Amino acid sequence: MVQSSKNRRRKRTAAKAAGAPIQFGPLEQWVGFTLRMAQEASFEAFSRLSRDIGENPGRFAALTLIAENPGISQTALSQASGRDKSSMTPVLDDLVRRGLVRRQRTHDDRRAYRLSLTPSGVKALAKLTACARQHEQNLDRIIGPRARAGFVRVLRKISSEIS
Amino acid sequence: MVQSSKNRRRKRTAAKAAGAPIQFGPLEQWVGFTLRMAQEASFEAFSRLSRDIGENPGRFAALTLIAENPGISQTALSQASGRDKSSMTPVLDDLVRRGLVRRQRTHDDRRAYRLSLTPSGVKALAKLTACARQHEQNLDRIIGPRARAGFVRVLRKISSEIS
Repeated sequence: MVQSSKNRRRKRTAAKAAGAPIQFGPLEQWVGFTLRMAQEASFEAFSRLSRDIGENPGRFAALTLIAENPGISQTALSQASGRDKSSMTPVLDDLVRRGLVRRQRTHDDRRAYRLSLTPSGVKALAKLTACARQHEQNLDRIIGPRARAGFVRVLRKISSEIS
Repeated sequence: MVQSSKNRRRKRTAAKAAGAPIQFGPLEQWVGFTLRMAQEASFEAFSRLSRDIGENPGRFAALTLIAENPGISQTALSQASGRDKSSMTPVLDDLVRRGLVRRQRTHDDRRAYRLSLTPSGVKALAKLTACARQHEQNLDRIIGPRARAGFVRVLRKISSEIS
């Protein structure tokens, strides 16, 4: 909490130093840009909460998906978390190096790995899940109970129909 | 268009190869994750459209913001596009190397740069803007005219209130 208010203060100071208000031009009207800005702000808020407990938000979705799908392959994990395989590799390398995830070669395909959590991975996930729960409560308060269902429905529609 | 249908085909094949359906556990219910998946899907769709014209979607917001705010500093640009300064640096280095953006040192602060578009930058932005317009039309069709205003209002509320 101390850290997050310090971050906010730093942000305001920098914005002030930058001077004149920024013109967003056509971006302002576009859903694609508005969606990206909301996602960046939400991710940044979740990052601050997890840094406060010495964790890293990039690990959260990967750890949860491995916990829910023990033995999952790296390819399936990348797809499930909406990343391409190359951007998942450094996240996984970091998780393995920190002893949170175990990589085991499969017998039938020597090039493929099956992933699972170590006991330390289970502990880290529990801490991150508590953070994520706090973050969700903050989002829910902002969105409001009346708008929530419709908002989530549109987000899911975008995920499944855009191509 | 040829490339985008090829990409979709590749995605389906890989998903099939991965086998059993993925369990998302608590992620499935969380707005934060749903927001991220929608943003990743939307960005990927915009990427495919811009690759079809030999462009890169990461450049679009930066080029637009520089065009709308000639002389903008790198710090102000990072803030306006919701990125931290370190993740903006490689995007800008690439734009300068390709001759789309000009960096000029300011007289009053030798460490600061002012950014502006070159004539090639103006041309690249015009092509990317046509792509973005197409992408917006696709998003609008998916969201639907009735849901659009409420959806955008919630996204803006998240950007301004989450902390």
